[in-house]
Amino acid sequence: MALTIGDLAKALQAESWGDETRVVTGAAEPGATTANQIALAMAPKYAAGLRKGDMAILAQGMDPAEYGLSSAIFATRPRLLMAGLTSAFDPGPEIEPGIHPTAIIHDSATIGKGAAIGPYVVIGSDVRIGANARIAEHVSIGKGTVIGDDVLILPGVRISHGVKAGDRWIVQSGAVIGSDGFSFVTAEESGVEEIRRTLGHRDSAGKQHWTRIHSLGGVEIGDDVEIGAGSTVDRGTIRATRIGSGTKLDNLVHIGHNVVVGQDCLLCGQVGIAGSSRLGDRVVLAGQCGVSDNIEIGDDVIAGGSTKIYTRVPAGRVVLGNPAVKMETQLEIQKATRRLPRMAEKLSQLQESVTKLLEKG
Amino acid sequence: MALTIGDLAKALQAESWGDETRVVTGAAEPGATTANQIALAMAPKYAAGLRKGDMAILAQGMDPAEYGLSSAIFATRPRLLMAGLTSAFDPGPEIEPGIHPTAIIHDSATIGKGAAIGPYVVIGSDVRIGANARIAEHVSIGKGTVIGDDVLILPGVRISHGVKAGDRWIVQSGAVIGSDGFSFVTAEESGVEEIRRTLGHRDSAGKQHWTRIHSLGGVEIGDDVEIGAGSTVDRGTIRATRIGSGTKLDNLVHIGHNVVVGQDCLLCGQVGIAGSSRLGDRVVLAGQCGVSDNIEIGDDVIAGGSTKIYTRVPAGRVVLGNPAVKMETQLEIQKATRRLPRMAEKLSQLQESVTKLLEKG
Amino acid sequence: MALTIGDLAKALQAESWGDETRVVTGAAEPGATTANQIALAMAPKYAAGLRKGDMAILAQGMDPAEYGLSSAIFATRPRLLMAGLTSAFDPGPEIEPGIHPTAIIHDSATIGKGAAIGPYVVIGSDVRIGANARIAEHVSIGKGTVIGDDVLILPGVRISHGVKAGDRWIVQSGAVIGSDGFSFVTAEESGVEEIRRTLGHRDSAGKQHWTRIHSLGGVEIGDDVEIGAGSTVDRGTIRATRIGSGTKLDNLVHIGHNVVVGQDCLLCGQVGIAGSSRLGDRVVLAGQCGVSDNIEIGDDVIAGGSTKIYTRVPAGRVVLGNPAVKMETQLEIQKATRRLPRMAEKLSQLQESVTKLLEKG
Repeated sequence: MALTIGDLAKALQAESWGDETRVVTGAAEPGATTANQIALAMAPKYAAGLRKGDMAILAQGMDPAEYGLSSAIFATRPRLLMAGLTSAFDPGPEIEPGIHPTAIIHDSATIGKGAAIGPYVVIGSDVRIGANARIAEHVSIGKGTVIGDDVLILPGVRISHGVKAGDRWIVQSGAVIGSDGFSFVTAEESGVEEIRRTLGHRDSAGKQHWTRIHSLGGVEIGDDVEIGAGSTVDRGTIRATRIGSGTKLDNLVHIGHNVVVGQDCLLCGQVGIAGSSRLGDRVVLAGQCGVSDNIEIGDDVIAGGSTKIYTRVPAGRVVLGNPAVKMETQLEIQKATRRLPRMAEKLSQLQESVTKLLEKG
Repeated sequence: MALTIGDLAKALQAESWGDETRVVTGAAEPGATTANQIALAMAPKYAAGLRKGDMAILAQGMDPAEYGLSSAIFATRPRLLMAGLTSAFDPGPEIEPGIHPTAIIHDSATIGKGAAIGPYVVIGSDVRIGANARIAEHVSIGKGTVIGDDVLILPGVRISHGVKAGDRWIVQSGAVIGSDGFSFVTAEESGVEEIRRTLGHRDSAGKQHWTRIHSLGGVEIGDDVEIGAGSTVDRGTIRATRIGSGTKLDNLVHIGHNVVVGQDCLLCGQVGIAGSSRLGDRVVLAGQCGVSDNIEIGDDVIAGGSTKIYTRVPAGRVVLGNPAVKMETQLEIQKATRRLPRMAEKLSQLQESVTKLLEKG
Repeated sequence: MALTIGDLAKALQAESWGDETRVVTGAAEPGATTANQIALAMAPKYAAGLRKGDMAILAQGMDPAEYGLSSAIFATRPRLLMAGLTSAFDPGPEIEPGIHPTAIIHDSATIGKGAAIGPYVVIGSDVRIGANARIAEHVSIGKGTVIGDDVLILPGVRISHGVKAGDRWIVQSGAVIGSDGFSFVTAEESGVEEIRRTLGHRDSAGKQHWTRIHSLGGVEIGDDVEIGAGSTVDRGTIRATRIGSGTKLDNLVHIGHNVVVGQDCLLCGQVGIAGSSRLGDRVVLAGQCGVSDNIEIGDDVIAGGSTKIYTRVPAGRVVLGNPAVKMETQLEIQKATRRLPRMAEKLSQLQESVTKLLEKG
């Protein structure tokens, strides 16, 4: 993409300074820019690398003349401006317009206008895909799946049968949508059922053979959802597994069967949600968090890295730790835990003193 | 699938009530059923959504007449009945019978009767696959691999060379069976070897270049095994990595080289087993559990969510926590930990009191 | 592969004993060898299975005559010898020489001499690949990506556009290199930004809609890197995500956007590194470790299994636990934690005693 500084400022809804006619073709860190790239110096500490005659994005209040710039754009909320800027210059993956001759699309499938479908894609019967889909090579989409407009599905994504997804869906390579749920039952009470009932005590151990509960429910995905590389979303048992509009999943996230994830959630790398749990809206789970099965997590809950959630979390709570407790409680526990060996020592000494006092007494 | 209530009851080995001739084509939650679906109300609390004239599955002791049902089937063990019911109505993935013309199958490979092999499948030399295999699009199977009867291999699965698997194997999309083990060695003692010897102390740090130990062993998988989406099973170094009959792996599970997993185990989402560890039969590891390398885990061990196992676990034990301890011990530790900040405070106060007493004394 | 004992000893730079002319075609554990396999008995405890007339690899100091062997090779550092031995006998995956007719390679791409490219591979425009590449079936490589000599890319690997990788790169099946970073911003301060500022306190909860920051940076990978099955490496936002020469990633590892991993690191199974963190050289992270975003980890750091790192770790440190502390501190904490319930009891008793003493006093 090539834009003038003036066009770019307009696209970013930001103010510009200096020569508005210069052409920008990309962005780089200060000192690493080539001919037509704009330098990103959105705080004074990043200004050191700026060179005379550069174009740059500056924080509000920085003086372009001081750095000898030719042109500048001012950022009020830098990360928000980054969203606009990177969007303007992202060439995206290479998917030729039209349907590649090696794509195998069932006669009963309908593909919307403006689709770009890459080599070796396989699309099953009764699939419906909206307008302007970009579907890269080696993707497979199963029978009866319905997908909205303006989606981007990257190489090698697996979407099974009976999935429903909204508009502007982005799916990164290696993701699997609609795998079968992990749901098995034994003829008699299993060891797991026994210890849930007895809280850890086992009377019986021995033969248990697992019979499969099949997954008849599909997966329902709202608008503006993104699924990260290698993430897996299992289909529901009877009703669908659901992911709300605006929710983003990072890489290698695991969503179990029957799970309901609300709107505008962020589930970071390697998060796992076990079967039938329900997350509210705007929930943020940092990397490697885990949620047990059949747990309810309220709206606006935030969990720090590696938090493990085994019980209900009320709306708005910020949690941390394994098992999850309020973040402030966890920070206190961590402080006390670090002192624990010293505490044990103190306790022994105290015990000796008290024993002596008691003997004297 | 379409069955009468009578047929379905017979298939589920359950008793029926009312009109046995009605046709059932699927199942849904009470209130969400369409024309020919049976409502799942296997406990009184689910009965609220039932509508007059519905077909339903009820718990033993519930009265179909009370809800105005037309037909009912009684469940003695509801989850077990769910297995039969969902199996009866699962259409499964769409894989056309026969071998798709774009499948590339080596001349020396043998494929059993009744196979359905999808588009763009690649099968290497000397591969042998049993009867009635269903292999979906984009699967690859490496040289010399031998697979039993009645298997279902979903789109994009990677099975490498030298794998042996039994009958009724199910492999979900994105799984990788037979990747190379993660095994490296340095010319001199590495930092990891040093700290294992010294329990954390390091004299030397500096150059260490890793040389690869190749994986000559394959993977051996029993009968009735299921591998979840995106899971990876590494091949062994000299002998095979092994997974016993009846064992089920959930999504994104990692099985290291030389690992032996026994029969009828359940390894839930994102579990990781490091190289050369051995699990007995009927072991259940909940989501995100981790097992260190070269660890032995006995038969019938159950580990709760996110349990991290660094040392041997005797047969039949129920463990929890990081590091893993007996579940009941962990629950006590968790209770005490939550009180730890208060304990620290109490200890200080006590210390003051004792100091005063000592001064007085 | 077939070698004589003499050739094999020379290849392993090791001494041999007995009949040097016998042919070896592979290796197995003692007792499990077939006709031309050499038995691996690199410690006296493994010698029990040796049979008369066997060929074997022995530890220095073991006597081949005692076991009635026909030939032997002596290992000074057994695991290092294993590297040479397994390399000598690894047939590797089956990829036919030359370019398979179904591979779709853009006219503008250049492929080095001696390449073997399998069926259904898709290679984009301006891609450059060095000499002797072995690229298995179903791989896709995006526009403008540049890859060195002697690489091995296994079935179904996804390499996106704008990736640069060095020589001797090995990528296991299911890995994704160059997926988009997980980077989103809200128009106003988000809940996550708020709690980072307030350390857990929230005044506002409610609407937050995520806008995508696109990933313009690519991925840069050094020489001699290996990427495990199902691992994902995100592209950078402006500059590239980087992995240094000699570094090895195990299966299902997640590397976030802008991350820098140094040289000769080992990242074991299911490790996750959040965005913009930097690892030095020779860092070893055991299985399921996690690193928060924007963290610096020095050279030669070693982290034990499931260690969670939220803050800077200085060079050379050995860490363990969640949150990570020095390994020796963590082992003390664990010891004290196991005694915590008893400590709590002791403290109560002590409190009673002191109360009595105070009353008396």
